[in-house]
Amino acid sequence: MNHKKLIVIKIGGSVITQKDKDRKKIKTENLERICGEIGKAYSKKNFSLIIVHGVGSFGHKIAKKFHLDEGYKNERQLSALPELHKDVCELNREIIKVMQKNDLPAISFPPSALWKLADGKLKGQSTEIIEKHLALGMVPVLHGDLLIDSKKVFSVLSGDQICYYLAKELKSDRVIVGTDLDGIFDSDPKINPEAKLITKISHKNYQKFDIGKSTATDVTSGMKGKLDELLKLADFGVSSEIINANTPGNFERILLGSKIEKKTIVFANTKK
Amino acid sequence: MNHKKLIVIKIGGSVITQKDKDRKKIKTENLERICGEIGKAYSKKNFSLIIVHGVGSFGHKIAKKFHLDEGYKNERQLSALPELHKDVCELNREIIKVMQKNDLPAISFPPSALWKLADGKLKGQSTEIIEKHLALGMVPVLHGDLLIDSKKVFSVLSGDQICYYLAKELKSDRVIVGTDLDGIFDSDPKINPEAKLITKISHKNYQKFDIGKSTATDVTSGMKGKLDELLKLADFGVSSEIINANTPGNFERILLGSKIEKKTIVFANTKK
Repeated sequence: MNHKKLIVIKIGGSVITQKDKDRKKIKTENLERICGEIGKAYSKKNFSLIIVHGVGSFGHKIAKKFHLDEGYKNERQLSALPELHKDVCELNREIIKVMQKNDLPAISFPPSALWKLADGKLKGQSTEIIEKHLALGMVPVLHGDLLIDSKKVFSVLSGDQICYYLAKELKSDRVIVGTDLDGIFDSDPKINPEAKLITKISHKNYQKFDIGKSTATDVTSGMKGKLDELLKLADFGVSSEIINANTPGNFERILLGSKIEKKTIVFANTKK
Repeated sequence: MNHKKLIVIKIGGSVITQKDKDRKKIKTENLERICGEIGKAYSKKNFSLIIVHGVGSFGHKIAKKFHLDEGYKNERQLSALPELHKDVCELNREIIKVMQKNDLPAISFPPSALWKLADGKLKGQSTEIIEKHLALGMVPVLHGDLLIDSKKVFSVLSGDQICYYLAKELKSDRVIVGTDLDGIFDSDPKINPEAKLITKISHKNYQKFDIGKSTATDVTSGMKGKLDELLKLADFGVSSEIINANTPGNFERILLGSKIEKKTIVFANTKK
């Protein structure tokens, strides 16, 4: 491994796809702007980078329809697997193309080929292939996916779980999570206009807040699932930052170490 | 694992891409016909299926230009990796789309995410993910790729190597290799019009023939490389059949057990 700082970025599925639409649709403008920002920062500063993206409307709709998030229930579900993989791969390929156009040496690693799960959890799976590509100066790109599961036949692996796992195993220096909100709120800001942004979260103050599910259809349980993973990461000693990826400039600023007005930091309990 | 017969199919890169052209180009008509034939046979007969495809002009040109087939030589080569992966993924995605249109439950497993090499060889790498997907009734699709190599930093893995490895590890019942020739000839039929088709090859008669390289640009050494892998497989007890995939009906007939006029059988030395 080289000794550059490692940053793990998550780009939420709702940021780059129209999650509410029935048709799969990429938010092209957002995707190009975000990849442009990341590319610019990557060319200016010397760090290693892993990018994980959600799959939004390219995965969640079909996963919901066939209850793939509940693991194997019946034969009928299996008929959905090829299409799901094809759709997710289609989104991933467009993202890779835009990343490469913005000078990011992005290479895709579908988690369904890399790993298998045990009862929905990534555990003891090798990160060697990812690490070796990082060492060659590549930017590994991963995404939410449907994996073989030793207990449930198959399980959904969320982008947030991937972030947590890689950040932990590779001892990431920073984790940046781009969502369609300014960070974590004390209630759902899409329903409650009085919802307040929580700028700092740790295990200590987490219990105070009633943090529910995000409104968007999300088989990986939205903000709650995200925060659970980030709190586990905090236990391990890695802080993470949740930012609004819809706000132009946010990704570039945070990667370059500039201040951004609104964000949530999930603080590590201990220094790693 | 289920107990259906397993067939491993290789589709040569020269069959589905214009290898001689500078531009990457899919032979759409061939691709659709071949996937149609395989799909029809798959729906009629009860067997498990793995499909491996070459990458033709979507991989070999850039691999040649940057000498990627020789392993790591210099930093400059690394700049070619992201584009190579993107191009190969582009071809693979089109193939998967056509396969699914023809009712094949095809799911892609990029070897660069599945495995790593040691001095250009696949050895001791897990096939569990492939096997589990087979058991779910999926058709795993793999392709020639560029993999991390513990000795050479990276190495090219050919579709033929993948065929050999999977057929051996998974104890395949049949291996069918679709090329742009009727089989193996005693000299290069693209240069020598007198070249004769060898209908049966085994270790015993192999030495008699002067089997050179195929004419097409191929960093994985064409027919010679193919035959080397198939002879290793014969040693292991698995026979293989080399057919002309450009001949309409060949794939369907051979999968359904019908006779085809011209082909080469590489005979197993021992029954597996």
